[in-house]
Amino acid sequence: MSKIVTIGGGTGTFTVLLGLKGKGHELSAVVAMSDDGGSTGRLRTEMGVLPPGDIRQALVALSGEEQLMLDLFNYRFGKGNLSGHNFGNLLLAALEKITGDFEKAVEAAQKILKVEGQVIPVTTSETELFVKLESGQEVAGENVIDDEPPESLRDALVSEIYLNPHVQITEKARQAISSADLILLGPGDFWGSLMANLVVDGVKEALLNSKAKKVLVLNLMTRWGQKGFKASDYLSWVEKYTKLDYVLINNTDFNEEIVKLYEKDYEYPVEDDLGESEECLVIRSDLLSVKTYKQEETDVVKRSLLRHDSAKIAEAVLEILNSEL
Amino acid sequence: MSKIVTIGGGTGTFTVLLGLKGKGHELSAVVAMSDDGGSTGRLRTEMGVLPPGDIRQALVALSGEEQLMLDLFNYRFGKGNLSGHNFGNLLLAALEKITGDFEKAVEAAQKILKVEGQVIPVTTSETELFVKLESGQEVAGENVIDDEPPESLRDALVSEIYLNPHVQITEKARQAISSADLILLGPGDFWGSLMANLVVDGVKEALLNSKAKKVLVLNLMTRWGQKGFKASDYLSWVEKYTKLDYVLINNTDFNEEIVKLYEKDYEYPVEDDLGESEECLVIRSDLLSVKTYKQEETDVVKRSLLRHDSAKIAEAVLEILNSEL
Repeated sequence: MSKIVTIGGGTGTFTVLLGLKGKGHELSAVVAMSDDGGSTGRLRTEMGVLPPGDIRQALVALSGEEQLMLDLFNYRFGKGNLSGHNFGNLLLAALEKITGDFEKAVEAAQKILKVEGQVIPVTTSETELFVKLESGQEVAGENVIDDEPPESLRDALVSEIYLNPHVQITEKARQAISSADLILLGPGDFWGSLMANLVVDGVKEALLNSKAKKVLVLNLMTRWGQKGFKASDYLSWVEKYTKLDYVLINNTDFNEEIVKLYEKDYEYPVEDDLGESEECLVIRSDLLSVKTYKQEETDVVKRSLLRHDSAKIAEAVLEILNSEL
Repeated sequence: MSKIVTIGGGTGTFTVLLGLKGKGHELSAVVAMSDDGGSTGRLRTEMGVLPPGDIRQALVALSGEEQLMLDLFNYRFGKGNLSGHNFGNLLLAALEKITGDFEKAVEAAQKILKVEGQVIPVTTSETELFVKLESGQEVAGENVIDDEPPESLRDALVSEIYLNPHVQITEKARQAISSADLILLGPGDFWGSLMANLVVDGVKEALLNSKAKKVLVLNLMTRWGQKGFKASDYLSWVEKYTKLDYVLINNTDFNEEIVKLYEKDYEYPVEDDLGESEECLVIRSDLLSVKTYKQEETDVVKRSLLRHDSAKIAEAVLEILNSEL
């Protein structure tokens, strides 16, 4: 039994955890804590709680509970004042208020959902995500950065990312990263899920101290602030924080109609410019889900149409786990 | 193992279930479904669900789960749009929406809370509670009737109670009542918890067909619409629906200061005028809780200051169960 740690948040982490679950390994999901959009953002503002949304998705991915319980956790209220709120988010917010401690709340939720493995907030301090653009302008808030960038800045390029205030890694996250056999970075929102973890104080050091194989799963499409990004640009960003051993990149073509839909939002397929001369091993494989995904009507946060396939990613990751460099 | 059925709702039912739990009997709580106040009322209006509040209280009373889970179910949101909503109510509302069936939602919640026994909605049809006053005037809505009667009608007397539309008893409630060894009517809101069950079509017939010992637990204080009510008046109302075998009445004195607080709301101790000549056995006993209860700040529904004691009621009920008439 090996120790696999994912670093990320949201749908990307959900996808990889789902694929890796039940394969006989010890799974830990280190999850970003700077989300401020949708139901999560409202709960932060109105109740003063830490962001529950990404934690909830990881809990559901690792849950051993029956389908009805998962449907309940993912249930999004459709009417009235509660509209758009997610039941699992409300549960985490209530547990945080009752226990007075976010980590205890997550542990209690793990028990309720019979989670196999553990879900770990990267920090338990309140903070906000910022990016600085090439132009020098700064943009605040994970939701704005990932989902609703200002119209005037649609075609911008991010030059810097940071949290304000600076926050410390939790002891649990530090331990999980340090003792891991394999660490999976991404996929998911590059700024709000992956980089938002890496910029937490102590994460870089934990990665440095870890003997784990470090694997970057590249996203399928560029997003806002990643103007002209190719595969090597993502590597450069991530390698400011850790030396990568492997990069996983999808090599199947996308449906052209869907690509055109993305282009309207200045989002493009991530071009593979990695060659074979990199310091890490580049693994090219079919990682694409054959399903396409629709936006839920009551969901105010934008979700991806093109996604990775859980089983395909898991297979590639387990091959890496068992391989010798 | 005997079959004990409670008929009621709210805090009164919670109190007796708590006392009877774990005493080796099969417990079923038949619960009124006409509540429209507080968090429950908002969920009915905004989400179009059946009233979850009384069901939730009974579930918590019979739960075998640990304290944190019960705290979670009872947690009342204190801030923002969610303010006043109760977590357990949201859970039942979400489950009803997911399953499309209130009884299935209750069954799922029973499983989550590891309920010992069962909680049964008296009906699963939408309805509203009405009372007619001596003056001929009609008052609509359980919340108004139990908790917020119009100022101009503070000193009124109810002459009739009904549901509009008429609704049918659930098969589960019918079976539980028919096969019971002992049926406990009350305590709790006389109109909104006890009578609101009895006026459901089919309840009277189920009681008639049941060989159970029927026990009325008299309330400690009169409430709105019960102007001048003594113990015998409650009996007269209930005996329109079932022949009682026992009446349980508290015989300890109340704290005078608290009684004065009640008088401001035209509420008075229920006077025992039953004598010994009644057709049912009158059991007089100390049933009073030594604790006094405070209103929760975030709770918009009025709660009783004087309450029955769980253990004392349970003891009296189990004595009746084991006695021969």
